[in-house]
Amino acid sequence: MTEVVTYRPTPDELSYTFGGREPVRTVKPGTILELSTEDCFGGRVRGVDDLPSVVCEFPYLNPVTGPVHIEGAEPGDTLAVHFVEIVPARDWAVSSTFPHFGALTGTHTTATLQPPLDELVWRYDVDVAAGTIRYHARRSDFSVEMPLDPMHGTAGVAPASFESRMTIVPDVHGGNMDTPELRAGVTAYFGVNVPGALFALGDGHCRQGDGEVTGTGVEAAMNTVVIVDVIKGQFAATPRFETDESLMSAGSARPLEDAYRMSQHDLVTWTADLAGLDTLDAYQLLGQVGEAPIGNVCDPNYTVLAKVAKRYLGGATAYEGMHERLRTTARDYLSNR
Amino acid sequence: MTEVVTYRPTPDELSYTFGGREPVRTVKPGTILELSTEDCFGGRVRGVDDLPSVVCEFPYLNPVTGPVHIEGAEPGDTLAVHFVEIVPARDWAVSSTFPHFGALTGTHTTATLQPPLDELVWRYDVDVAAGTIRYHARRSDFSVEMPLDPMHGTAGVAPASFESRMTIVPDVHGGNMDTPELRAGVTAYFGVNVPGALFALGDGHCRQGDGEVTGTGVEAAMNTVVIVDVIKGQFAATPRFETDESLMSAGSARPLEDAYRMSQHDLVTWTADLAGLDTLDAYQLLGQVGEAPIGNVCDPNYTVLAKVAKRYLGGATAYEGMHERLRTTARDYLSNR
Amino acid sequence: MTEVVTYRPTPDELSYTFGGREPVRTVKPGTILELSTEDCFGGRVRGVDDLPSVVCEFPYLNPVTGPVHIEGAEPGDTLAVHFVEIVPARDWAVSSTFPHFGALTGTHTTATLQPPLDELVWRYDVDVAAGTIRYHARRSDFSVEMPLDPMHGTAGVAPASFESRMTIVPDVHGGNMDTPELRAGVTAYFGVNVPGALFALGDGHCRQGDGEVTGTGVEAAMNTVVIVDVIKGQFAATPRFETDESLMSAGSARPLEDAYRMSQHDLVTWTADLAGLDTLDAYQLLGQVGEAPIGNVCDPNYTVLAKVAKRYLGGATAYEGMHERLRTTARDYLSNR
Amino acid sequence: MTEVVTYRPTPDELSYTFGGREPVRTVKPGTILELSTEDCFGGRVRGVDDLPSVVCEFPYLNPVTGPVHIEGAEPGDTLAVHFVEIVPARDWAVSSTFPHFGALTGTHTTATLQPPLDELVWRYDVDVAAGTIRYHARRSDFSVEMPLDPMHGTAGVAPASFESRMTIVPDVHGGNMDTPELRAGVTAYFGVNVPGALFALGDGHCRQGDGEVTGTGVEAAMNTVVIVDVIKGQFAATPRFETDESLMSAGSARPLEDAYRMSQHDLVTWTADLAGLDTLDAYQLLGQVGEAPIGNVCDPNYTVLAKVAKRYLGGATAYEGMHERLRTTARDYLSNR
Repeated sequence: MTEVVTYRPTPDELSYTFGGREPVRTVKPGTILELSTEDCFGGRVRGVDDLPSVVCEFPYLNPVTGPVHIEGAEPGDTLAVHFVEIVPARDWAVSSTFPHFGALTGTHTTATLQPPLDELVWRYDVDVAAGTIRYHARRSDFSVEMPLDPMHGTAGVAPASFESRMTIVPDVHGGNMDTPELRAGVTAYFGVNVPGALFALGDGHCRQGDGEVTGTGVEAAMNTVVIVDVIKGQFAATPRFETDESLMSAGSARPLEDAYRMSQHDLVTWTADLAGLDTLDAYQLLGQVGEAPIGNVCDPNYTVLAKVAKRYLGGATAYEGMHERLRTTARDYLSNR
Repeated sequence: MTEVVTYRPTPDELSYTFGGREPVRTVKPGTILELSTEDCFGGRVRGVDDLPSVVCEFPYLNPVTGPVHIEGAEPGDTLAVHFVEIVPARDWAVSSTFPHFGALTGTHTTATLQPPLDELVWRYDVDVAAGTIRYHARRSDFSVEMPLDPMHGTAGVAPASFESRMTIVPDVHGGNMDTPELRAGVTAYFGVNVPGALFALGDGHCRQGDGEVTGTGVEAAMNTVVIVDVIKGQFAATPRFETDESLMSAGSARPLEDAYRMSQHDLVTWTADLAGLDTLDAYQLLGQVGEAPIGNVCDPNYTVLAKVAKRYLGGATAYEGMHERLRTTARDYLSNR
Repeated sequence: MTEVVTYRPTPDELSYTFGGREPVRTVKPGTILELSTEDCFGGRVRGVDDLPSVVCEFPYLNPVTGPVHIEGAEPGDTLAVHFVEIVPARDWAVSSTFPHFGALTGTHTTATLQPPLDELVWRYDVDVAAGTIRYHARRSDFSVEMPLDPMHGTAGVAPASFESRMTIVPDVHGGNMDTPELRAGVTAYFGVNVPGALFALGDGHCRQGDGEVTGTGVEAAMNTVVIVDVIKGQFAATPRFETDESLMSAGSARPLEDAYRMSQHDLVTWTADLAGLDTLDAYQLLGQVGEAPIGNVCDPNYTVLAKVAKRYLGGATAYEGMHERLRTTARDYLSNR
Repeated sequence: MTEVVTYRPTPDELSYTFGGREPVRTVKPGTILELSTEDCFGGRVRGVDDLPSVVCEFPYLNPVTGPVHIEGAEPGDTLAVHFVEIVPARDWAVSSTFPHFGALTGTHTTATLQPPLDELVWRYDVDVAAGTIRYHARRSDFSVEMPLDPMHGTAGVAPASFESRMTIVPDVHGGNMDTPELRAGVTAYFGVNVPGALFALGDGHCRQGDGEVTGTGVEAAMNTVVIVDVIKGQFAATPRFETDESLMSAGSARPLEDAYRMSQHDLVTWTADLAGLDTLDAYQLLGQVGEAPIGNVCDPNYTVLAKVAKRYLGGATAYEGMHERLRTTARDYLSNR
């Protein structure tokens, strides 16, 4: 019988780092977690007049729910997190520019002497039943509907080497990868660095363009269901994702080509292993059927995924069918609810 | 009556630069060009024993067909090139590693002291009728079929500022962008830098993964049909593409984030103009529905596209319907052939 | 009367992070600290047969001495650390290549499929009295003497935002900047992020080339004397250095141009402030007399300094003469010892 | 008897590319060339009211004097150019910001949506006899004297592969490296790509900071004397410099770390060859005594040099004493003039 644990943190229970924090819950492998997450602004930006630089207080940005300790997860193992469901918690969501943050502005590191862009907030209408959101221009009457495609920008485990990282940072422990691929139906794999893995989750987006060019997606509080499990004795050196159709590896680094290299390198060696291919044969194969969806080009590290359809790999199975098993559990949960 | 010009160059007519060369043909705007192009190896790599570093002679790599002078195209105008058809000319194609070339190896600029990767050639079977190609591993019996998705890695015009560039370089004049988006059905727009524009085309791929991680796609000679036309008085500062569904801008630069920035910047300002949006409103809109397919992460500049579905832009029309008109001409040509 | 505190940690007292650790000592502003530091290998590489990848245990690398709590240092203040003396503790020092670490090799992030470089150790003779060290080639009889120029690769304070970072990382809190400019005679300024600042120090080098191209300097345990003091109510957003002749700002980021931008941006605004110049006037001035010594091109962030001779700034004084005061204290200490 | 050729081009004789142009003179190896060069603005910016974006006409920027055909220089050889003397031709010089050009501003490739920096011109007084120049702030009365340290930002030969490049581009053919190391007393080595090498020279600076952060040095027309000679059968893959004390290799690429890697890689292999060292031994040696002066962080490629004092190389002689011979010729010329 699958255990279901529900956890809806109060604002003061939210976390702002991966690592360096005590677990909020301890659960068994195989547990279904019903979680709520706040948006990246901590819910303080509620309309176009709530400028983030005014209403938010650094470093209380990008809160995550967790961390959750998963029993039996030890350094050297891999944590599997299947995303069952991601549902916006409100009928609105927000996005904004933010001074010196985003891809088309100078930043703290790409330091320029130019003045910052105007700080503007956009408020979206969210219609969960219809599966749509609506954009409204700020400086004209233009408005347009877009598909709702909920995802989590931030998910991961405690980092290695006694580190504690701001939730805004994506790296090999996961974190703020900001990839639209982290939607319901995906299983994410994270290498375990500390006992219990210490999984946390936040930064829901109703949808997001490739690269999150303005620095924010359509930011929303979420009600999210995940199933956590543990793969013993195998370590995912960088986050990996699996769907029914595809395998993916994440790379988070600067410059952007290094994020690309990391992700392609991991997927080449992973698929070589899964399909029994020589490394250069896998390199060639990926070179022709591999995809490279960009996650973010605005965070402290940039994130790119390497992605390949399983059908090109001759029936290879990752992690002994973990994704398929969690998928079945998810279906049972959803149909019995 | 649309004029059709057929040009099938002999090997010694091929060109190795954009710029610095006399036109091979002069045609009127609206002309349909039936062209043949050689593969990036000049057709010298015909099997797994033909190592590129042995059979090819630098700098006679990546030949292009052209340049073609288009009458009336003047600096400050934009050349429109609609890709009607791209058909592999042979029943095989090749790909390879190449010493110190590709994304997962040190290179001439990312200089390391490590030895190069093994140089290997893969020969693909090409079945145009079935719309498939077949990959064969070199170091095992693994084999798999992939969809044929023909594209041109290299297309562009003579650069500005009296420059002449190797065909392997992508930049604002086009060149070796190596993006899978340059397939049949697309209209490419290139800013005109010299009288006649001097359009050239080459480097056909039967298909290619995002980023062309090994440094080569599935390289093939092609029989390609394009229609060329001129947009007077408007200058595309970087290559743009249009399909029935989407608009795209290309950015070619290093590091990869700059290619991303260039492409997003051009698409933001272009869509702001087309949809009558304020720049920051367009930035926000693109931030949520924009895509960023990676072209190459191996050439002298890396290439990323910014892409948006037209349906989000409120019925905006680019270049006064040029794409739709060329599309109609293409359909007439194909149905009357 | 200046207080002198001596602290020579045992191996198990060493620290491997900035942040996330209790102070080993608490001292008053103005205290002279006599410290000993271990080398980056924790003293385990003692000769050419001690391969780091064999004798060292990740993540117990690059140990630092500390952290030291400085009373009265509060977030928003700046910690001043004057380096009085840095003396090698042994008559030998070591350097090495390390698999996938260094500037002329693929790395974890600049991921390639090539095999790693050979792992080799070089052992240097250190003659403190003569002020020289001696290099011996490993694969020939070549040998040459070099000036001893002792420095600390790693120095800094606890980071902001509840973070804890591996000591190998340089960032705005300091850390592993690996710049030869951090030698005796310099005053380093670090913005204070947590109460007490939590200063730590390690990674002594007998000398180092620009960029630390192989990934290691001439690594040595050191006996080092520093004076710590606090500047209230001013926050150095990135580490700054001052000598009798020069002012410097450090930038640590990737790609390397961003490290350059950060450092130049900080020095432009700092010198504008000190010399009463308009920002663009300071930009122009730095553009002609500014220097940009490269620290490292091998660590998780790369480090570049921006440097300007004070004589170009019209007699401006940084931090109300802090450097001059500490310099005097240092001279008194050295002459009375 | 050494031949002396004087060439002072009229404005319409200036060149704006390396490659793609007929030689203006043909000379024998060993010839002393007395040249005049215009400043990067073509002499059109003469005071603070002459804004470059108004008075200059793209692409007629950064003119060079030449190209000069050197008899007997064949592809695969190396051209040696000894800089005997670089003397400012006027008693003033200028520098400026330029919209979207420079290191602390968004650019064409680091594309941002922010407005450009103000365009300002600074006019320097030049006192050749005193060996000084004088800076005057634009927005205050601040003024300061700086040493005159004349150099050429742009020098090189025709590129390979039928290319023609704007003079503003630095690459393996030389070009706009913008390094202060290219001053009188240095011998520059350029690999020859086309018959006669086609050497050209321009972009004099009275001095320049590391990285040319504002995008321009103290720009001046120059009267410059060089001696050209040919090293048969050896090819410098990237520009190299030699002084009485040092050897240097130039790397020009993006991102900046690749410029660093290229330069260090070339210097490692060059010094290994000169000193009879194993490659890793040379890598280690450079790692401790190598310098890395930054040239520019603003041009289409960024430039970094790798530099080592000859005294660490055990008496090795580059190119069979070419530098020493040209040095002697230079001394004779200067003393007999």
